[in-house]
Amino acid sequence: MLSFENDYARGAHPAVLSALVESNLQPLSGYGTDPVTARAADRIRAACEAPDADVRFLVGGTQTNLIVIDALLGPTEGVFSAVSGHIGVHEAGAIERTGHKVLPLPSHDGRIALEDLRAAVEAFDGDENGEHMVAPGMVYISHPTEFGTLYSKEELTALSAFCRRRGLILYLDGARLGCGLASPASDLTLPDVARLCDVFYIGGTKMGALCGEALVFSGHPAPARFLSLVKQHGALLAKGRLLGVQFDALFSDGLYFEIGRRAVTAAEKLKALLRRAGCTFWLETPTNQQFVIFENEALERLRRHVAVSFWERADATHTVVRLATDWSTTDEDLAALAEVLKTL
Amino acid sequence: MLSFENDYARGAHPAVLSALVESNLQPLSGYGTDPVTARAADRIRAACEAPDADVRFLVGGTQTNLIVIDALLGPTEGVFSAVSGHIGVHEAGAIERTGHKVLPLPSHDGRIALEDLRAAVEAFDGDENGEHMVAPGMVYISHPTEFGTLYSKEELTALSAFCRRRGLILYLDGARLGCGLASPASDLTLPDVARLCDVFYIGGTKMGALCGEALVFSGHPAPARFLSLVKQHGALLAKGRLLGVQFDALFSDGLYFEIGRRAVTAAEKLKALLRRAGCTFWLETPTNQQFVIFENEALERLRRHVAVSFWERADATHTVVRLATDWSTTDEDLAALAEVLKTL
Amino acid sequence: MLSFENDYARGAHPAVLSALVESNLQPLSGYGTDPVTARAADRIRAACEAPDADVRFLVGGTQTNLIVIDALLGPTEGVFSAVSGHIGVHEAGAIERTGHKVLPLPSHDGRIALEDLRAAVEAFDGDENGEHMVAPGMVYISHPTEFGTLYSKEELTALSAFCRRRGLILYLDGARLGCGLASPASDLTLPDVARLCDVFYIGGTKMGALCGEALVFSGHPAPARFLSLVKQHGALLAKGRLLGVQFDALFSDGLYFEIGRRAVTAAEKLKALLRRAGCTFWLETPTNQQFVIFENEALERLRRHVAVSFWERADATHTVVRLATDWSTTDEDLAALAEVLKTL
Amino acid sequence: MLSFENDYARGAHPAVLSALVESNLQPLSGYGTDPVTARAADRIRAACEAPDADVRFLVGGTQTNLIVIDALLGPTEGVFSAVSGHIGVHEAGAIERTGHKVLPLPSHDGRIALEDLRAAVEAFDGDENGEHMVAPGMVYISHPTEFGTLYSKEELTALSAFCRRRGLILYLDGARLGCGLASPASDLTLPDVARLCDVFYIGGTKMGALCGEALVFSGHPAPARFLSLVKQHGALLAKGRLLGVQFDALFSDGLYFEIGRRAVTAAEKLKALLRRAGCTFWLETPTNQQFVIFENEALERLRRHVAVSFWERADATHTVVRLATDWSTTDEDLAALAEVLKTL
Repeated sequence: MLSFENDYARGAHPAVLSALVESNLQPLSGYGTDPVTARAADRIRAACEAPDADVRFLVGGTQTNLIVIDALLGPTEGVFSAVSGHIGVHEAGAIERTGHKVLPLPSHDGRIALEDLRAAVEAFDGDENGEHMVAPGMVYISHPTEFGTLYSKEELTALSAFCRRRGLILYLDGARLGCGLASPASDLTLPDVARLCDVFYIGGTKMGALCGEALVFSGHPAPARFLSLVKQHGALLAKGRLLGVQFDALFSDGLYFEIGRRAVTAAEKLKALLRRAGCTFWLETPTNQQFVIFENEALERLRRHVAVSFWERADATHTVVRLATDWSTTDEDLAALAEVLKTL
Repeated sequence: MLSFENDYARGAHPAVLSALVESNLQPLSGYGTDPVTARAADRIRAACEAPDADVRFLVGGTQTNLIVIDALLGPTEGVFSAVSGHIGVHEAGAIERTGHKVLPLPSHDGRIALEDLRAAVEAFDGDENGEHMVAPGMVYISHPTEFGTLYSKEELTALSAFCRRRGLILYLDGARLGCGLASPASDLTLPDVARLCDVFYIGGTKMGALCGEALVFSGHPAPARFLSLVKQHGALLAKGRLLGVQFDALFSDGLYFEIGRRAVTAAEKLKALLRRAGCTFWLETPTNQQFVIFENEALERLRRHVAVSFWERADATHTVVRLATDWSTTDEDLAALAEVLKTL
Repeated sequence: MLSFENDYARGAHPAVLSALVESNLQPLSGYGTDPVTARAADRIRAACEAPDADVRFLVGGTQTNLIVIDALLGPTEGVFSAVSGHIGVHEAGAIERTGHKVLPLPSHDGRIALEDLRAAVEAFDGDENGEHMVAPGMVYISHPTEFGTLYSKEELTALSAFCRRRGLILYLDGARLGCGLASPASDLTLPDVARLCDVFYIGGTKMGALCGEALVFSGHPAPARFLSLVKQHGALLAKGRLLGVQFDALFSDGLYFEIGRRAVTAAEKLKALLRRAGCTFWLETPTNQQFVIFENEALERLRRHVAVSFWERADATHTVVRLATDWSTTDEDLAALAEVLKTL
Repeated sequence: MLSFENDYARGAHPAVLSALVESNLQPLSGYGTDPVTARAADRIRAACEAPDADVRFLVGGTQTNLIVIDALLGPTEGVFSAVSGHIGVHEAGAIERTGHKVLPLPSHDGRIALEDLRAAVEAFDGDENGEHMVAPGMVYISHPTEFGTLYSKEELTALSAFCRRRGLILYLDGARLGCGLASPASDLTLPDVARLCDVFYIGGTKMGALCGEALVFSGHPAPARFLSLVKQHGALLAKGRLLGVQFDALFSDGLYFEIGRRAVTAAEKLKALLRRAGCTFWLETPTNQQFVIFENEALERLRRHVAVSFWERADATHTVVRLATDWSTTDEDLAALAEVLKTL
């Protein structure tokens, strides 16, 4: 079975796996206090050009989102997000479970627009009943977004400036940040992200790790007793090395960026072959996720040979699906997909 | 200072206050276990024609909403509400604080439409990623709505039927239920509400009590250990009599309905005088809240003499305000308002 | 039925009720923003000799406890309490529901001892696994305690000094504070309490009000957006006047202290008659609650005529009960009790 | 540096690591829906002789504990635990964060005694104020306990019978279950555990996995929407294979039991050498954790060469430390430790 279902169908990038194998019998202290984890954090600070950043390692994306939001918001503050944002749609209510409201903003192919954010903040500020309402505390963006789209440097700079002026925390969910940084369409660098955001995470799970996300507090240090909060949410690994070793490998010799480039390069080829096959794009993106509309019966035939991901119903007879590439996508996979498409 | 600011500017209806005074020195057992509270519950069951209903007394509306939602939803379930619903806007995130997401539906002057609800439920049911999402568990409606509008018997019947077919709890917030029942525009009776909803509350605070709401589980009994849950939320009064005595009075001799009629009658007079004064209605309603647009400087002058309630900014130079009547509104108040309006 | 069951069996002290009646038709702004509530806060600041204190009004004791603890503790901090403390035993898990652990200390007739507190804090400070543990954040004491006992000025001074040195918030639950202040056995004044504690509440419900507690932040201001937090917990009354008017009356002409004196004076008479009747005290206290051991069958006979409160089983054939007095206890009540005791 | 600090200092058992390496490039569906994970669950059901058990895989122990307790308790129910239990001491308040109280029972070297449990339950059942209290809902035990001690089959059978009679859920934390099953001192088998408990977890992290715990609902199925609850707590791995592959390996060819035997055999050797070195045991146990008292300066010298774990202060000049073995402990490690001990 060919898989373009997602970017987490295979295990780890071979270099990441090798690092786990090689370090396996070395005794390391627990809970992320070991020197390999410390070195991974150093490498990330260097890559971010943020020598004072506080870097922590967590297991997964939803976990990271809920812990960040829980740690940084006051009890009556909420977090803005595009209505399509992962925290508002696909985290089974994890944010609300921490007690915080997700404040929806319009989605522009997954992005928020500064004018929408400003309007929402001004409406709150001008409302005489503000004390009865959830106050704006944070802005959540994903980059790439859930739709594979990107913010430009100009857009992120403007969002950052607005947030700082208004005292809002700017948090970037970088589950697929490597793909965003590697996209030829992007003018944002990792140091830009570190400089413009207060806190963000560099996704590992979808970028070549077995699991793991590197959370970077670049705007200010992590809150007091952050490790305890991580523990309280059941997110602290006894074998913290599992995360440290992987990120140490990912940030050695530019591997993280290389993994992003491979995924994006494969996606460019994927787009070309989908176009050649006459597919209808629902959304064509500059990163590793592409969205295509299939007639339902054709989709059923496709799915006998290729795993793809349900996105949403387009209409009664058509469905939007997502096809994703990653570091492990081969030219053979792409050629095989092209063959299947011919038969639909 | 004349007040049309809201329907909670004065204390209790005199008959309610008298009941408190008369019973004051009678020793009664605590926490709502006294016979007066039991009699109040009996009277409410009778008025609802729901002999098996479980009636509980709570202090305020937000408290009631959060306890109902917390008690009846599973941990990964959410509650539908019009985007304008009190639980989604003006409860400072109380629902999210219990861990539940408020799932927004379009507001039709405060009401939800069955077609919107059905579309949202069907979208969830047809989504292959439903396990990653908050599941529909309850439908919250207010009646009258926050905009003073009402559901017809036909609309409520259809919502109820849909909810029962789909296994959704239908919960009605009746903060101003007495005004809804008293409105000449309404064809819904209290027994209709009890029959069509699973759970609802009969508002006291805005209908002549000092505080207090009567929560009615008409569709099924209250959840196990409900009193403990009320205690856990800090909502259990040691002197439960404060609620029991007031509702005993409100449901004696039809007082609750009389209070509604007085508020609605005063509102009809208010609408007439606003029209005569040439005011621009933002929304004219069949209950005790009316919404008018004022030019900002005129509003400032008005507010020197009359307390009204900010609703929202209409545009840069105009503001929407709410004027409310209640059982205590007198013809003298109305005449005085008419005089002030002439001077703007 | 004679009632010594508790100190909340009757309604409000007549002077408090009169204040409600007299102000009933005066329109006042909602949510505690009215001038009567402001005056009540002023009177309390004056009585506390704490001109900078931030005074807020809440409805009940458990509600106040959970809001204070929720507002002031960090997410991984807990609150020390005697194992017998109300927050640990009789609040149905309200504190845990806010996410915080109650850290138990030994109970010395309801009091905590400084040496136990110090030992617990030092154990935490010296534990290499402290990051995996709940950190001490607050010390909760009740005064009078749940057993009717009192802290001396020397004891409270020592607790306060320790807490300030160690950065712990000292919070005093004064559900029956008036009885404590009125006790001849006590050398603590209200200004002492305000000076030595960071935050405390002056109980109204059990001291002559229908409901209501005055929360005093004397050590530092209330947290940001505290009103919103109150709203979020469903604890904000639309008719905030209900609390303001009552406390305005309670702190006029020394009424609050007079209510305490009457309860304590009645308790002294109660103790004398229980002694004369040959009752066995489980605990004899300097305030308004007395604890007596009855043989179970005698207790059953007693309860046919007198409501008393179950405290705990003493052994298979004996039970500890509590008898309480309050402002409404009359010499006739006491005489009638004496008669019943003769017949057991 | 020699390490007897804990049983999570090294990576995975080589056979577990091999399984990860071999399956690495095989595309598998996400979130634990893949066939390898299904096979791992089958193997565990077989090992438990519980064909109807519902087996789920989670990442860590605290995470598993908090999710089980959150999923199975009603909102006003608490969980009994020995005061020394992991959920009450070393999870940074994770259980309270889900809203539930940990109800402490005396610790008998980490175990609870049936008589203490029965007394606590009977006290609750006989308390007239039970509605104001947290109700017993679950009994948490660890096996081996945090002290390395074990329940006998007779003890576990009696606890199970009591819990079933009283409607309490019996939950066993098996972070080191393999060591318990492998101990010569134990007469409990895995099928016994599955039969006597309602839910339990088979620890992976401390038994040869990189991470991961297998949660077994043997008494009844997992609660509805359990996967969504796992997601909501941020505990759902996109690459669920990471857990499935490891447990598939652990439950192939008896590896899990072999790992337990190796740890316990090493511990027997460790005990012998500690005895020979004249060490003072604080607690000598039948599993892989041993507790020894060192004079503080000797401990400091020891720690220059050997990592051991702080347990608690014994007195001003002595400290209790824990030494642990696991599958990776070699005879060389033990010999080296013996050498160091000679020099203290």
